[in-house]
Amino acid sequence: MSPTDYPPELSKQEEEYLLSSLKDWSIAHGLAVRPAPSFVQPSQDPSGVLASTAPVTLFPSLFPRSCFEEGLSIQKAYNELYSAIARDESWLKSIVEELVHVDDFVAKLWQTHLEVKKEGYVQDLSLGLFRSDYMVHQDPSQSNPLSGLKQVEFNTIASSFGGLSSQVSALHNYLLTIDAYPNSTSSIIKHEALRQSQSASSLAKGLAAAHRAYGGSRTKRPLCVLFVVQDPERNVFDQRHLEYALLEDNGVRTFRLPFGETLSHTQLDTDRNLVYTPPNSPSKSYEVTTIYFRAGYSPDDYSKDEDWDARIKLEKSRAIKCPSVLTQLAGCKKVQQVLATPHSPHLKRFLPDEKVASRVLETFAPIYPLDNSEAGEEAKKLATDASLATKYVLKPQREGGGNNIYRKAIPPFLQKLPETHWPAYILMEMIEPPPLTNAILRNGELQRGGVICELGVYGVCLWRNGSGNDQKGEVLENWEAGYLLRTKGDQSEEGGVAAGFGAVDSLCLVDG
Amino acid sequence: MSPTDYPPELSKQEEEYLLSSLKDWSIAHGLAVRPAPSFVQPSQDPSGVLASTAPVTLFPSLFPRSCFEEGLSIQKAYNELYSAIARDESWLKSIVEELVHVDDFVAKLWQTHLEVKKEGYVQDLSLGLFRSDYMVHQDPSQSNPLSGLKQVEFNTIASSFGGLSSQVSALHNYLLTIDAYPNSTSSIIKHEALRQSQSASSLAKGLAAAHRAYGGSRTKRPLCVLFVVQDPERNVFDQRHLEYALLEDNGVRTFRLPFGETLSHTQLDTDRNLVYTPPNSPSKSYEVTTIYFRAGYSPDDYSKDEDWDARIKLEKSRAIKCPSVLTQLAGCKKVQQVLATPHSPHLKRFLPDEKVASRVLETFAPIYPLDNSEAGEEAKKLATDASLATKYVLKPQREGGGNNIYRKAIPPFLQKLPETHWPAYILMEMIEPPPLTNAILRNGELQRGGVICELGVYGVCLWRNGSGNDQKGEVLENWEAGYLLRTKGDQSEEGGVAAGFGAVDSLCLVDG
Repeated sequence: MSPTDYPPELSKQEEEYLLSSLKDWSIAHGLAVRPAPSFVQPSQDPSGVLASTAPVTLFPSLFPRSCFEEGLSIQKAYNELYSAIARDESWLKSIVEELVHVDDFVAKLWQTHLEVKKEGYVQDLSLGLFRSDYMVHQDPSQSNPLSGLKQVEFNTIASSFGGLSSQVSALHNYLLTIDAYPNSTSSIIKHEALRQSQSASSLAKGLAAAHRAYGGSRTKRPLCVLFVVQDPERNVFDQRHLEYALLEDNGVRTFRLPFGETLSHTQLDTDRNLVYTPPNSPSKSYEVTTIYFRAGYSPDDYSKDEDWDARIKLEKSRAIKCPSVLTQLAGCKKVQQVLATPHSPHLKRFLPDEKVASRVLETFAPIYPLDNSEAGEEAKKLATDASLATKYVLKPQREGGGNNIYRKAIPPFLQKLPETHWPAYILMEMIEPPPLTNAILRNGELQRGGVICELGVYGVCLWRNGSGNDQKGEVLENWEAGYLLRTKGDQSEEGGVAAGFGAVDSLCLVDG
Repeated sequence: MSPTDYPPELSKQEEEYLLSSLKDWSIAHGLAVRPAPSFVQPSQDPSGVLASTAPVTLFPSLFPRSCFEEGLSIQKAYNELYSAIARDESWLKSIVEELVHVDDFVAKLWQTHLEVKKEGYVQDLSLGLFRSDYMVHQDPSQSNPLSGLKQVEFNTIASSFGGLSSQVSALHNYLLTIDAYPNSTSSIIKHEALRQSQSASSLAKGLAAAHRAYGGSRTKRPLCVLFVVQDPERNVFDQRHLEYALLEDNGVRTFRLPFGETLSHTQLDTDRNLVYTPPNSPSKSYEVTTIYFRAGYSPDDYSKDEDWDARIKLEKSRAIKCPSVLTQLAGCKKVQQVLATPHSPHLKRFLPDEKVASRVLETFAPIYPLDNSEAGEEAKKLATDASLATKYVLKPQREGGGNNIYRKAIPPFLQKLPETHWPAYILMEMIEPPPLTNAILRNGELQRGGVICELGVYGVCLWRNGSGNDQKGEVLENWEAGYLLRTKGDQSEEGGVAAGFGAVDSLCLVDG
């Protein structure tokens, strides 16, 4: 079979065998989500005992081996880069200052930082569970296009799917083992071409490293890690796999705290130790070593003033934040843009090693500001011209899918927006991935067709922020932590699986 | 807390924490069933991607330590007993002859054996994955009642829940670890009082032992184990856990074959090797080493003549049967009755060691035939008297719940039945278990109240049937293989969880 014919059409019997094997394995191994309300109405299952196979691809998607290996091998450099940015408050300030007037959310995050700074931070350790997202780019203007990885975005908060990613790579390996893939694929889908993602255990190990680095209890309470979460959360099993790995592999207790209930169930003592009191057991409280945010990354999570009070309270505490507000701000698209704008001088500030910096630079797609700088004025011409704009995507500062404006939709979108608000967005050259095909099972429906794959590489980084004579701080732990492949139909331009597009996938490496 | 107050009432917050932890853990670990049609209509989920938390108890049920230990320690004797019965065709024949005129199903199974015998069996190995079911009996006539285990029944075919049982004991252990049980229970629910059931891995190890004992392929095909199953099967994850353990721990391939499709997808070659051709891959066929029946135990599985043809075909084959027809017949209630009728001489035929036999005898509740023997005439008086019948249960020969007649329902039931058909039933003294309380989550509904617990002890036995000079054969492998606790509301008299009553449970040992 040639890769261009991959994956093969399935006979009815082949499809039945593959699907029944997949559906049973996925539930038996927690590769699951709570069903969408459009699939199961909440009134039908008020206590929430139903679950469904997570949206998954039937086949592992083809991915160039060299691109995958490059993505893994530069992750430690990316961890170092974003840790260094998060430690460089004055540089971050210069970035944020360009945004505070046009982006309320960034402004609020910055104010949170300033408010904590006024009293002084009491925890100099910070944890990042990062994910750098890429697509394979093939320059269509080349007659023999070389593939290379281009970064879509860098996530510094709530990097999701690390739990499910480990399971989906195990699923595809299982399907290969039981001969669920037709014989015709045997030259392509081989055990040595598949890669098991260690993301669940590796991210949990990162949280455990922070937990240990926190040291002993100062309040003579048992210690715990706090998962700050959205409620309800359909993607709960993804998070639970990290919790179970923390407990089973590392002996670390965790609690799930809906972000909106933070003020009710946590206390800061006079030394700013964070004390969590589980509502089910008011007489027993825990000292929180590490706060893992799986909420708080979007303005939607802050519907009332108390939510910002909650964020400030957590940020003030002695607990290690994953991430801190400054680390979250380092994930602004604006940061990605100033690094990736052609001829930018910023990268070498954070990555002094030229060889390392040039490898990272290779993964940047050109990104422009929409401000009054020279690059900004050039970008405005691209973004407002209907024919030129087709090569670009317009992105706000937010994490998470659903907010991007694509190609020919850009000029009319900007036309409706006062030009003073344009700097809230960045303009990024579209990455042009190679055409691929796959089949996706989602809410019980099977869809087959052209797809786009996005590779996420996880990274764990624990560092000490600078203070006193040591203004730069230091990285204590730094490792690459597995991968995610997310695949969506190529007619959709967004890729957040939880947001309702696409599926989790694993990769089948191909050479050349 | 005193055991009589166990389990405690839960506050709203305690219940919420326990339930949300339980619901997420169960799906993440495959402690699941496909939802009942009354819960999710098939039209809503035509491709079958939804699953639900399996019916489970919130708390591990209290169980006397001495009873549990006795149940485990006599399992090898029970394996030996039923293996010996299955190897003693002439004795089995004398039992079956009393039934063939009143029980069509037993008659058909016996005919199947005779038909295969005509041509001669070509496989002298047999595998039993047994489960001996007990209740704790407290003689209410004693002022200080001593507890003892009394056997409910002995299953020789399709002993279910070995997959889920391992998961539910792990669930209760997890809930204890995360403090989901209130502090007041700490003197009762302790890690050392819980027992992890190794049933999934141990039963899989049994199938793997048969697979290896089969020897190499005679047809130069790859080897496999065949799970012969019902279709559809809501309890599929229970079976899948055994399949996954076979593959992961033992490297053994399995296929699932709906019993009704046996004739289409299997062939017997001239040497009676059983060849399975997966419908998804017609060009690749497998030689079957071991047939594991999770179907075929009930007359409902034989709706057409071809189903009996299928059973004969499988029985004729060289594959090791789990169980063989004779082993299935050894599980007749009539066998249990002749062993357990007071003053029965039969037990010592199979268990010559008097000490072993007397321990097994201790676990028998009195069982009577309803025939013209002396014991039978006595039993008829008990069964037809409305006041005496309240101490008894009437059972047909079938495996599986749903067919028993209890207490005062017995006399009117017999009245409607011609007396010539009475010998199809056995009359058994009711076991009177101690009063217990628990809470069960089932189809999303939480029910709390009095419960009855049934302990199942699994056993693996691989033996060689007698032939030639060695008429008695020999036991090759024999081990106790974990346990199941099944718990049902005490207003229901039946206990098959899959049949719609009760829940899977684990035990919390108490002394005395």
